[in-house]
Amino acid sequence: MTTLETGAGTLHVVGLGPGGPEHLTEAARLAIAESGVFFGYGPYLDRLALRPHQRRVASDNREELARARAALDCAVAGETVCVVSGGDPGVFAMAAAVCEAIEAGPESYRKVALNVVPGITAMLAAAARVGAPLGHDFAAISLSDNLKPWVLIEKRLRLVAQAGMAMALYNPISKARPHQIGTAFSVLREVLPGGVPVIFARAVGRADERIALMTLAEADPAQADMATCVIIGSAETRVVARPGLPPLVYTPRAAGARP
Amino acid sequence: MTTLETGAGTLHVVGLGPGGPEHLTEAARLAIAESGVFFGYGPYLDRLALRPHQRRVASDNREELARARAALDCAVAGETVCVVSGGDPGVFAMAAAVCEAIEAGPESYRKVALNVVPGITAMLAAAARVGAPLGHDFAAISLSDNLKPWVLIEKRLRLVAQAGMAMALYNPISKARPHQIGTAFSVLREVLPGGVPVIFARAVGRADERIALMTLAEADPAQADMATCVIIGSAETRVVARPGLPPLVYTPRAAGARP
Repeated sequence: MTTLETGAGTLHVVGLGPGGPEHLTEAARLAIAESGVFFGYGPYLDRLALRPHQRRVASDNREELARARAALDCAVAGETVCVVSGGDPGVFAMAAAVCEAIEAGPESYRKVALNVVPGITAMLAAAARVGAPLGHDFAAISLSDNLKPWVLIEKRLRLVAQAGMAMALYNPISKARPHQIGTAFSVLREVLPGGVPVIFARAVGRADERIALMTLAEADPAQADMATCVIIGSAETRVVARPGLPPLVYTPRAAGARP
Repeated sequence: MTTLETGAGTLHVVGLGPGGPEHLTEAARLAIAESGVFFGYGPYLDRLALRPHQRRVASDNREELARARAALDCAVAGETVCVVSGGDPGVFAMAAAVCEAIEAGPESYRKVALNVVPGITAMLAAAARVGAPLGHDFAAISLSDNLKPWVLIEKRLRLVAQAGMAMALYNPISKARPHQIGTAFSVLREVLPGGVPVIFARAVGRADERIALMTLAEADPAQADMATCVIIGSAETRVVARPGLPPLVYTPRAAGARP
């Protein structure tokens, strides 16, 4: 990235991956090393081992647009700024909020050199833990209805299930909306066989990781919390028992009747 | 991973990310360092800086199941084995092939300690390059009809477009099937507005990277080759012009009419 063309600074939007530092990429490490000011949700900033000259500005998880504007203001002033996201910044995270702020903001925001650094998103870390449940066509859907109507979420769940695709559900539950994931299971039970595997993957890669495998028929909403990514298989997803090891869950590369 | 419980060796299935070593995670680096034998498509193996005692077994990109069996045989014999994938091994890559081989193979395969190490998958590297086109609900669909009927692919394209979700298309074209991506565009034009942004992201992170942005109405299949990931926005995806910088493309976090 060059700052010479536009006169403004640089804004890195960096994905930290799902948990431990072992999922950080070298590109993320470099972007963090060269940044002077860090914006993000406190628990994500806590994962960074910053040096004394690096400043941090923590904010609440729900203040994404305000955080994006503050980071852009700082970059416009010529600083090298880093906004951090857990997982991948492009998947239900800060990259879209930064783009929204740029489009709606002053002309100076458009001159900032924006560098989005991808990370390991929760669904792919979760999938890796159990085998390959997203090994064929799949969708990623957020169950949060803060920014979209619930009827649209239900429509998407139905269409993706009718398409025979596996899916990963982000933001399955919150204090304000405790019924989202249970309602989603009810919708999906109308379309999918009861035997479809459901994986609750909580805090993958962290000390408090917890993985639970159930069928859609018996899936228990109480297994999900805010740190959980829920993966729903398709009718073709397989569970393979292994002696002395957890079962494997995978969706075969082949799908549907051959022509 | 422990090898003591089962008596068999370890099989790492590692994602190398989209291109340069800067997208490799520390977990991938560690798995590679401790492995003795490497299986994979030749160009992926070429990316590794192996030491003299580390053996490599290259195979053609289409021989995934045979490669998985060979790697499992090697692990059963007690070796620490590494199967490499470009991108993420759980997204249209080797993790599902290894799981299939385990399910269909001898009992000894089920005793192998399997460790899938996630990587940055092509669509997320491509999305990061242009902004956040997958910033809201999205799907990943392979256009290869080697292992599923084309009618199923068309059905999935239609349903995902009807759901108003962005999508990433893997394997958009091949020598044997040069018409896939063009046919997919025709199908999508029946459902989506012509102004929907289409991103052709070729070889992201490599020296021969090439990004092209078009509308769905004008999308040119000739922009895609085997190394291209194609991202189709939704009707809500935005393009933001920037002076002296490439345009940003993003899908807003908000979707649909508010209730």
